[in-house]
Amino acid sequence: MGTMKDVAALAKVGVGTVSRVLNNSGAVKESTRRKVEAAMKELNYIPNAYARGLKMNKTHTIALIIPTIWHPFFSEFAYYVERNLSEHKYKLLLCNSDVSNDKELEYIQMVQENKVDGIIGITYSDLDNFVSSHLPFVTIDRHFKEETVCVTSDNFHAGELAVEKLVEKGCHKLGYVGTHSRFPSETTKRRDGFEAQAGLMGVPYAIYDGEDPVVEFKQEIRTFFEKNPDVDGVFAHTDFIALDILEVLDEMKRKVPEEVQIIGCDGIKMEAGRRQIVSTIRQPVDLMAKAAVEKIIQVIDGEPVKTKITFPVHYLEGPTTKNKKLK
Amino acid sequence: MGTMKDVAALAKVGVGTVSRVLNNSGAVKESTRRKVEAAMKELNYIPNAYARGLKMNKTHTIALIIPTIWHPFFSEFAYYVERNLSEHKYKLLLCNSDVSNDKELEYIQMVQENKVDGIIGITYSDLDNFVSSHLPFVTIDRHFKEETVCVTSDNFHAGELAVEKLVEKGCHKLGYVGTHSRFPSETTKRRDGFEAQAGLMGVPYAIYDGEDPVVEFKQEIRTFFEKNPDVDGVFAHTDFIALDILEVLDEMKRKVPEEVQIIGCDGIKMEAGRRQIVSTIRQPVDLMAKAAVEKIIQVIDGEPVKTKITFPVHYLEGPTTKNKKLK
Repeated sequence: MGTMKDVAALAKVGVGTVSRVLNNSGAVKESTRRKVEAAMKELNYIPNAYARGLKMNKTHTIALIIPTIWHPFFSEFAYYVERNLSEHKYKLLLCNSDVSNDKELEYIQMVQENKVDGIIGITYSDLDNFVSSHLPFVTIDRHFKEETVCVTSDNFHAGELAVEKLVEKGCHKLGYVGTHSRFPSETTKRRDGFEAQAGLMGVPYAIYDGEDPVVEFKQEIRTFFEKNPDVDGVFAHTDFIALDILEVLDEMKRKVPEEVQIIGCDGIKMEAGRRQIVSTIRQPVDLMAKAAVEKIIQVIDGEPVKTKITFPVHYLEGPTTKNKKLK
Repeated sequence: MGTMKDVAALAKVGVGTVSRVLNNSGAVKESTRRKVEAAMKELNYIPNAYARGLKMNKTHTIALIIPTIWHPFFSEFAYYVERNLSEHKYKLLLCNSDVSNDKELEYIQMVQENKVDGIIGITYSDLDNFVSSHLPFVTIDRHFKEETVCVTSDNFHAGELAVEKLVEKGCHKLGYVGTHSRFPSETTKRRDGFEAQAGLMGVPYAIYDGEDPVVEFKQEIRTFFEKNPDVDGVFAHTDFIALDILEVLDEMKRKVPEEVQIIGCDGIKMEAGRRQIVSTIRQPVDLMAKAAVEKIIQVIDGEPVKTKITFPVHYLEGPTTKNKKLK
């Protein structure tokens, strides 16, 4: 394996020409390029990534910050982010923040040290002071004060749609069960949409909306159903909360979907090709990942980018609702 | 933000001394180190990762190659790998191979280009010609010809244990349902252990063991149960195969666990804190990830490493077996 100098000597060109060929920069005659490439091949020359990084100041690496990869929503998202990055010849650096502010900041610091070109983040802590419009950053579902690019889905409509479906399936009193972060997130609109639509349709409803982290969450859910025994249709803030509700109702000997119907949100599946685990409002995770990748590359390349991209959601029938309309 | 030269000037030392402080290399007096560090702080100096990489020839980055992150076993493993790497100040580069030989090789090539220091891989294609003992590589569950470090669990005992448990729970005829790759893997020992223990205990059994990729897998499972209607206890090669069996038996109107009991293998959970989805033989994923990280760092640092580390497995009761012994 030769050095750049060996390549230059064999191709009978200067080292600068070899460098220009490597970095696709500056004018190089096609015949010269071919000579240099042949010499590289003959010498089995592999350009050193560091040296190239110094020259181009690019790592072609994006950091993905998520609370935990051990979660089907985030792992599906990470799967599609990696796949799309790979098509653009970018690599993915994975960071589980464990919802720790320190770990999130540590990764943001990495951009400043030139270790990654940009960040795609599903973050939950208060990064407002650290995320500036100069940092290549695309956020999922999270507002920031400055003009950071945000990819999200139509969370408000998710709430509306859940109410519509539950009423269509014969529910007479609705419940919303969820939690929210201290920091502003697009996902709180799920509740807003739920309340707006229930109001519009004149359906009575009750709300449980705890602030994360909720201790004894299942006990809170139980209390909610004890206080509201007539709730027969629930919109859960996430599919996992829908699973928690299922467990609690099972303990309370209340049948799903016969006595209580549940619609979750997210549309998680344990792996590609499996069914979703509950009736749900599905976010198009694949499209959101694709958009996040396209946007971060545009930001890095200095292209103008829309600061908010919102994808439509849709309803998916699962085992927690009645699959025939009640007459 | 100053340069290394600025730091040297402010600290009244040579640039070489600043470099030695940065890289922890060579003898630097404690008082000098403090002066340099104070100067860095004052100038808000951030060392350039590329320049450091060139100097140290290290990226402190490990590539993790897995078939897909969108799978609870691999995402749990990745979660613990990242957490352990993070404690050692290493970063994780994520690669979904989609069981594609090309993508696996592309990542191995990256090591040679100095982009990562080593690889932890759960690979399924034939990399034997590319993985040499010189490449920092730790494999999970996979043999290679050369002396690659392999972290695995006691797959043979998993098979033995499943048979023991099924017999203890009153099963009279057992079934093994699984698939295997064309390439040698530790996981084929699950079937070996199953057969050995069934033979030892004198229990009749039937086997379905398809070669990946199996088309119409559920139809194969159905055929297996049609041919072997008296099988009342099944060891599934993985938890996901156990789920597939559950679906097929549900379609065939056969009750689990009343008529057929099922034990899976892996112990997957959808996220931390949830229950496993079937009765299962659990691999200690957290310990395997920790060992893989420790071993890859030892290989990189040139320390002697045992080439095979095997962790014990244990049985976890779930909803697909009877939880009381039959008398």
